[in-house]
Amino acid sequence: MSLGIAVVGAGYWGPNLVRNFRSSSDWDLVAVCDLDAARARKVIGPRSTVDVETSLERLLDRDDVAAIAIATPARTHSAIAMAAFEAGKHVLVEKPLADSYAIGQQLVDEARSRNLVLMADHTYCYTPTVVKISELIAEGVLGELLFIDSVRINLGLVQPDVDVFWDLAPHDLSILDAVLPFGLRPEAVAAHGADPLGTGRACVGYLTMPLYGGAIAHLHVNWLSPTKIRQMVIGGSRRTLVWDDLHPQQRLAIYDRGVEFAAGDQVGPSERNAAAVSYRLGDMHAPSLPESEALASVASEFAAAIRENRSPRTDGESGLRVLDILEAASQSLRSGGALVAPNSADLTVGSLS
Amino acid sequence: MSLGIAVVGAGYWGPNLVRNFRSSSDWDLVAVCDLDAARARKVIGPRSTVDVETSLERLLDRDDVAAIAIATPARTHSAIAMAAFEAGKHVLVEKPLADSYAIGQQLVDEARSRNLVLMADHTYCYTPTVVKISELIAEGVLGELLFIDSVRINLGLVQPDVDVFWDLAPHDLSILDAVLPFGLRPEAVAAHGADPLGTGRACVGYLTMPLYGGAIAHLHVNWLSPTKIRQMVIGGSRRTLVWDDLHPQQRLAIYDRGVEFAAGDQVGPSERNAAAVSYRLGDMHAPSLPESEALASVASEFAAAIRENRSPRTDGESGLRVLDILEAASQSLRSGGALVAPNSADLTVGSLS
Amino acid sequence: MSLGIAVVGAGYWGPNLVRNFRSSSDWDLVAVCDLDAARARKVIGPRSTVDVETSLERLLDRDDVAAIAIATPARTHSAIAMAAFEAGKHVLVEKPLADSYAIGQQLVDEARSRNLVLMADHTYCYTPTVVKISELIAEGVLGELLFIDSVRINLGLVQPDVDVFWDLAPHDLSILDAVLPFGLRPEAVAAHGADPLGTGRACVGYLTMPLYGGAIAHLHVNWLSPTKIRQMVIGGSRRTLVWDDLHPQQRLAIYDRGVEFAAGDQVGPSERNAAAVSYRLGDMHAPSLPESEALASVASEFAAAIRENRSPRTDGESGLRVLDILEAASQSLRSGGALVAPNSADLTVGSLS
Amino acid sequence: MSLGIAVVGAGYWGPNLVRNFRSSSDWDLVAVCDLDAARARKVIGPRSTVDVETSLERLLDRDDVAAIAIATPARTHSAIAMAAFEAGKHVLVEKPLADSYAIGQQLVDEARSRNLVLMADHTYCYTPTVVKISELIAEGVLGELLFIDSVRINLGLVQPDVDVFWDLAPHDLSILDAVLPFGLRPEAVAAHGADPLGTGRACVGYLTMPLYGGAIAHLHVNWLSPTKIRQMVIGGSRRTLVWDDLHPQQRLAIYDRGVEFAAGDQVGPSERNAAAVSYRLGDMHAPSLPESEALASVASEFAAAIRENRSPRTDGESGLRVLDILEAASQSLRSGGALVAPNSADLTVGSLS
Repeated sequence: MSLGIAVVGAGYWGPNLVRNFRSSSDWDLVAVCDLDAARARKVIGPRSTVDVETSLERLLDRDDVAAIAIATPARTHSAIAMAAFEAGKHVLVEKPLADSYAIGQQLVDEARSRNLVLMADHTYCYTPTVVKISELIAEGVLGELLFIDSVRINLGLVQPDVDVFWDLAPHDLSILDAVLPFGLRPEAVAAHGADPLGTGRACVGYLTMPLYGGAIAHLHVNWLSPTKIRQMVIGGSRRTLVWDDLHPQQRLAIYDRGVEFAAGDQVGPSERNAAAVSYRLGDMHAPSLPESEALASVASEFAAAIRENRSPRTDGESGLRVLDILEAASQSLRSGGALVAPNSADLTVGSLS
Repeated sequence: MSLGIAVVGAGYWGPNLVRNFRSSSDWDLVAVCDLDAARARKVIGPRSTVDVETSLERLLDRDDVAAIAIATPARTHSAIAMAAFEAGKHVLVEKPLADSYAIGQQLVDEARSRNLVLMADHTYCYTPTVVKISELIAEGVLGELLFIDSVRINLGLVQPDVDVFWDLAPHDLSILDAVLPFGLRPEAVAAHGADPLGTGRACVGYLTMPLYGGAIAHLHVNWLSPTKIRQMVIGGSRRTLVWDDLHPQQRLAIYDRGVEFAAGDQVGPSERNAAAVSYRLGDMHAPSLPESEALASVASEFAAAIRENRSPRTDGESGLRVLDILEAASQSLRSGGALVAPNSADLTVGSLS
Repeated sequence: MSLGIAVVGAGYWGPNLVRNFRSSSDWDLVAVCDLDAARARKVIGPRSTVDVETSLERLLDRDDVAAIAIATPARTHSAIAMAAFEAGKHVLVEKPLADSYAIGQQLVDEARSRNLVLMADHTYCYTPTVVKISELIAEGVLGELLFIDSVRINLGLVQPDVDVFWDLAPHDLSILDAVLPFGLRPEAVAAHGADPLGTGRACVGYLTMPLYGGAIAHLHVNWLSPTKIRQMVIGGSRRTLVWDDLHPQQRLAIYDRGVEFAAGDQVGPSERNAAAVSYRLGDMHAPSLPESEALASVASEFAAAIRENRSPRTDGESGLRVLDILEAASQSLRSGGALVAPNSADLTVGSLS
Repeated sequence: MSLGIAVVGAGYWGPNLVRNFRSSSDWDLVAVCDLDAARARKVIGPRSTVDVETSLERLLDRDDVAAIAIATPARTHSAIAMAAFEAGKHVLVEKPLADSYAIGQQLVDEARSRNLVLMADHTYCYTPTVVKISELIAEGVLGELLFIDSVRINLGLVQPDVDVFWDLAPHDLSILDAVLPFGLRPEAVAAHGADPLGTGRACVGYLTMPLYGGAIAHLHVNWLSPTKIRQMVIGGSRRTLVWDDLHPQQRLAIYDRGVEFAAGDQVGPSERNAAAVSYRLGDMHAPSLPESEALASVASEFAAAIRENRSPRTDGESGLRVLDILEAASQSLRSGGALVAPNSADLTVGSLS
């Protein structure tokens, strides 16, 4: 039996949700909700019996709606999600989960107390590439993690309400949260930005995150680049992985190459001096990855979490960790790039492996 | 009439200097000097009448030596250069000029007071690519500079005496110094590094430099990357330039593409809000660049500066500006990434254009 | 008022036609026809009032169907198209138009005599890239055409009924027909193929076509290549164009580069000896191309041709020229690669310019 | 003890030979011979005791010359080599070995009868890439060979004496000769060319060679292409190899991917029908290759062959097989692309494996 779902918001991302829920055998798309009925109608298309709703209240009253997918502007996410929880509906919400960590926390708590599913639509985490990266790290193929460098730059519209960190970094942060063994829990965050056009918000941004064990993660997000680059390098003590998302025939390359210690891994850090370090040049391996649409997997996972009464892979908590870093980044930006500890820092135990 | 020159240091870079001075019609390579005579002999090769010298003193005593090129370890640069100046010889010195700003300043002063040429071997600045970039910026093709992002990563040996900033960043810093209209004079420098292998020095480094007028420059230098990337993006208000040094058939691409203001450039910064910003997608243009060896141009410029009794394009001052940033970066690194003003900051006037 | 259309064939290509006719404001998709009702139903999707038809006869009887789009196996194209013409319907047909030149000619004649539109779905010809290439050639930007080299290789299923020429070459041939000033009218065709797996048909194919004026066109089609290459080089006396369809950020590159004669273009062919030939290295220019789905343009053009009672851009005649070359290629293949003149050869006048 | 060598010809390729023989410990470069003494002097450079010779006769009279390397225009190769053999010198000769098969055969015979080494400077065959490809094929990594497709195109000067086949194809032919298990022994050769500029010789060329066992090899050579492509695909029944010589960070890629038969390799050719063929998508593997200069290996191999009194890896016979194909190609070109059997065809036994 398929579950009834409605998509709320028929703007930029809504049509993608509509297309995927429509073609999923797990779901029955019953309605699209938007204040602008014509826009919703256009997304549904002709010769369709899917309903248009312009009232959220009416939508949430429907018995054939078990869940909603929210694709409205970020500042409206939390109010819509709260209303949905009150009506007993499960919720899939676009990134970012909310516009602040505190409000995001309320959403997580509310979903938990009502035993409803709250899922963050971290679409990238459901691509075959990110799934493969998670496996490779979990299996120890890369060894100990040393550094992560991510670049996500393109010509992008200057957003009216958020800076480039809040617009683009959620993608990278949610990916890191998905692939790191214990989720993304940096010791601190430092952010540097530039607003060379005088738009009132950073259009070029750099985010540095020291990780436990001496590793480092760094993001470059940029709305002003005329060339699109989406690349992540994850360096490990055994192998290093390069993900180039714009190279569809070879998205993932694993280099059996790196720096090593003359006396092997037995040498403790105190004995590791420069003289003992050399490097080896090994082969590269590019695994074959299936072609599948990530959003179709998001739809399946959402349905499975509801049916199995469990947390989805990208649950509210992961959305919350992303918000945590974004808030720390904003604070660092205001204080000239100083290192700022996220809320989660004091809770974190253990190290990367 | 060609000028007599000797190369001091027959290690990694020396052979390149030997080859280029040997084949230059401006120069007569008379000797190679190294403590290890066999190594010097090997660089010279068989059936040659170029001399091997193992004593710097004897070398500097020779009348047929008008100038020396120093390719020894960095910490020895200043002593050798000082001795050369005392012997009345002109000096070309590998990067970095010296191991501190203060000592570098002494070299610059000494050369000036003796009216001798001190040239920094900023080889990259003599490539057809960097020469072209300088011209494009000087001619206003890019417009107002908005951001500069440079990546120089590769598998590199952990150096026994310097971190990755001092090893790799001099290349990017000297390039920026050459292409920026008033040289590289950032407001401040912030550095973040990581030493995930516990070698005692940063192996991964990020350098952020707010520039005057709201622009930003950022460098990523890394010894631990299994793939080599050498890329620089220079974003301007009119056009943006991408230099990919590992793409010899298309090293330089100029995108007539960018973000623009609805009401044109007449709108003052105070009126620049997000709503007024859109972007345009224009064509890309890749200029044809001559193939020429940069080091041959270094040799010519060194000879020309001596003959014309003038400063070379990359003079001691430019080497000093690079040292200045490196020292500020080291200080920032020690203080957790705080912004540190370089010595030159208080001297700087004007803005990028 | 939108025109009623039905898609015949719900296999590989049908769903793409369905999607595009569905979202076109020119068309009203009223039915999908397939012998397998479940397959047709699946293409339409849930909550839709588009009809499923399993009988072609019933479909062609419907008054709300003005036109049909045929996406069935190639050998059935002509019978379905003929039936449609008899029922007074306009026809869009997948490549190849028919399985022989003679039958294709009948289709063209039948459509003309009934004043109905017959359009070949040469989808590639409606991509922004091919449209741009046509313009560049028509405007003389490339100068006199010298050579065309096209490569279309990938891992492809060995087809049960056709060889690699009939499967893949129609794409390239239809493109050449669209961009060459007088259509694709080679003097002769030579084909070489290989069947190294012993499947009973060529899996690797090379097609050589001497063009008028000494130019040459050559195609490489291949089902056995593990890497996908889709590249066309069009060399001209003024400029040369390289189209790399798998490089979405720079599909088209125009090189202002080439071979030239010492004494300029005034030198006649008889004086053109090797000594007088040199080459110049000029810049490259990559025009910005809009992103648009070609099949949406196919749908628009089909509607416009019907409404304006005119030939579509890729009419039956162009489909026929493609069949002509394919038949000549098959004949050349059977005779060991001998040059074979196509039917159109004796009709051709003039030269490339 | 090093062997004395002289380089004959100080034009385009001579300086490369000079540089490599000079730095080889196997050799002592004693002289450079050219009719133009200034040109020879320039290649040797200043402060050198290597001799300039302008008379071949005087050169061949010298006792300190054990061998010569010939880098003169192709039409002079055979006369110089013959004179050298008469003087008892070993010979390394640039491609092509001679300007006809018959004369090449005389050189091979003369060397054999005098027990002197005749080596063809098939430089590419000594690159780490070609050495690796040979090993992979010999070890059966690719399985049965199915097709070979090679592209070597660039902007090239129209040669005064030879067409594009004789200028560029020797590279590919010598590579194929080196990597194929029994050398390059096609059943026949078909050549198509174009001279769209009216220079009197083909500037664009295609060479098709049916190989034993149903496989095919095809070359594209072109002087008129504004972009440089040097790529070879070698398709096998188990794996397929792609060599992209202009991608230094990943020259060689081995795809564990291909077409396969439903019932496995046990199915005989007669049962191989299309229905039974499917394809599998596997991983890609890029072996790490050492960086080494091929010409240095040529120099070593030449010395080793002399010392060990054996045939070098690229002996006169391999040069002869290249000439054989070139002559057949010229003949095919004259007869409109007809298949022409090379001299070696009747001698060939066996099949590719």
